[in-house]
Amino acid sequence: MPVMKAVRLDNMDRLMIIDQTRLPGELIFLDLHDKCTLVEAIAKLRVRGAPAIGIAAAYGVYVLARSYMGMDRQSFFSVLQQDIAQIRNVRPTAVNLSWALARMEKVLNAGREASLSQITTALREEAMTIDQEDAAISRAIAAHGAPLIEEGTGILTHCNAGWLATSEWGTALAPLYLAHQQGKRFRVYCDETRPLLQGARLTAYELLAAGIDTTLICDNMAAVMMSEGKVDLVFVGADRVARNGDTANKIGTLSLAINAAYFGIPFYVCAPSSTLDPTTSSGADIIIEQRDPMEITHLWYRQAMAPSDVGVLNPAFDVTPHSLITGLISEEGIQYY
Amino acid sequence: MPVMKAVRLDNMDRLMIIDQTRLPGELIFLDLHDKCTLVEAIAKLRVRGAPAIGIAAAYGVYVLARSYMGMDRQSFFSVLQQDIAQIRNVRPTAVNLSWALARMEKVLNAGREASLSQITTALREEAMTIDQEDAAISRAIAAHGAPLIEEGTGILTHCNAGWLATSEWGTALAPLYLAHQQGKRFRVYCDETRPLLQGARLTAYELLAAGIDTTLICDNMAAVMMSEGKVDLVFVGADRVARNGDTANKIGTLSLAINAAYFGIPFYVCAPSSTLDPTTSSGADIIIEQRDPMEITHLWYRQAMAPSDVGVLNPAFDVTPHSLITGLISEEGIQYY
Repeated sequence: MPVMKAVRLDNMDRLMIIDQTRLPGELIFLDLHDKCTLVEAIAKLRVRGAPAIGIAAAYGVYVLARSYMGMDRQSFFSVLQQDIAQIRNVRPTAVNLSWALARMEKVLNAGREASLSQITTALREEAMTIDQEDAAISRAIAAHGAPLIEEGTGILTHCNAGWLATSEWGTALAPLYLAHQQGKRFRVYCDETRPLLQGARLTAYELLAAGIDTTLICDNMAAVMMSEGKVDLVFVGADRVARNGDTANKIGTLSLAINAAYFGIPFYVCAPSSTLDPTTSSGADIIIEQRDPMEITHLWYRQAMAPSDVGVLNPAFDVTPHSLITGLISEEGIQYY
Repeated sequence: MPVMKAVRLDNMDRLMIIDQTRLPGELIFLDLHDKCTLVEAIAKLRVRGAPAIGIAAAYGVYVLARSYMGMDRQSFFSVLQQDIAQIRNVRPTAVNLSWALARMEKVLNAGREASLSQITTALREEAMTIDQEDAAISRAIAAHGAPLIEEGTGILTHCNAGWLATSEWGTALAPLYLAHQQGKRFRVYCDETRPLLQGARLTAYELLAAGIDTTLICDNMAAVMMSEGKVDLVFVGADRVARNGDTANKIGTLSLAINAAYFGIPFYVCAPSSTLDPTTSSGADIIIEQRDPMEITHLWYRQAMAPSDVGVLNPAFDVTPHSLITGLISEEGIQYY
């Protein structure tokens, strides 16, 4: 079962992350000690997964506050608030980033009367609370989702929504880890998830480490796996869920949901309730991050695999309408649509 | 407009192909001068696309026959027939390979009374006929399909079914080339087509060379392009069409067809009538080639992008039921289902 934390404060109080761009070949830990390393790590997906980004950003605010304690009071507040605004804009689609930063900002603002040292301590506590709450949410999602998995169930998942993406067991993978712990044997089909291959690199890595039967496929093979009766359930994560249930998740999720509906396969979104964004009424209002064309045209930024002058669209996420979603599994239970 | 031939007899009577595994970075021609180079080129997709494979195999039989002319009569026939059987098995899904080889074998068998020199000449003529017929078919498919394309139409295509895959204009891309020649302006969304990226490497290369507005996307982005109203038509090729219209084509086609049906977008298969296999009653009878897992786990056979012990499924094709196909565009016209 999973033994590492993708994001943590180590025993020297440093914010350490696993550099997810180097997996599965290399397991490398990075110390995010200033704003530049933090912003770069989030932008380059060294830390990724909506909950993990939120946790990293929260610890990041604490680490920055600590480094600013020598400043005068006014500068401390203004520099930290500028940093928070900058970090928030690095990845616009996942709601957890702005949600975690809003919690940190609230603690910061509540400390207007306190000493900088007291504020910094309070920020550390808030970040740890966010981290611990997320771990508890993982366990609760696992408990609600695991009963859907039976002996022999075929499960398809997309991108990575496991322990690398959260504080603990993950969201979409959490029910799998619990079912596995309960002794159920089942198969997982793991979409590679172009362009950045989070499924091939991260989900396959996680599941194999846990001893779960895992088969890697290209994203465009999901339909044929479904048509052959290999897939009984689809579990995916979410980056933002609108008020009506429309869900933004990693690009490719919409296609999967349409395929699952065609073949009559239940399609579940697994996400903490903090992923629900009450300010967004439907999927049409969700901002979709567009990323670097080189993620597609070049294999891992090295070898050119497309003509240099080709146009490229590279949306990082898509929106699945709630009509295609069987249910949303959060820490509160399963909400069926 | 396209100016090269993917497969041809050159003016020294050599069977020359463009090595499609090296595109778009390098344009390299290979001389397929014996059975080993021919089999390797087909197996490794140096020549690919159902019609082009058939043409290469036909010329290949001629080139082999010529090299065997010094043999005694009995050896000539038995060695050549063994070769034909071996070549036929290299790629089981595309019907054109066995179809072209059956035509060559018929010519061979008709020559039981003729001299080896006469037989070899007849084989050369039959291969050239197959090549020329395919060119005429491309033009006819273009003529039937081009009227579907209007000014401003958004077209999505998958894999490569252009001049690199055939003798001339291609199948799925033929209507695009004609519409472009007629002065229509339209946009093409080109699926990269994992795992071997024929869309990114070959289709984008062809379309840009022709001056057509081309946008490269990952396969898993097709649904979101459709949901945003960017796609008005889907054109794909085919490797084998069963008697009931079920169509085997490059992996990912089924998912596209399901997505197109969901969004109400017309989905056309473009293929010569020789792709129709009267011996196959439905898609369930089509043998699907399974390919090397390293095509998925390693980026272009080099860098490992997945754990080394992960299970992999790598079907090269999938079968789209006729119920999801709007029509089949062949040289004979459009057959609506």
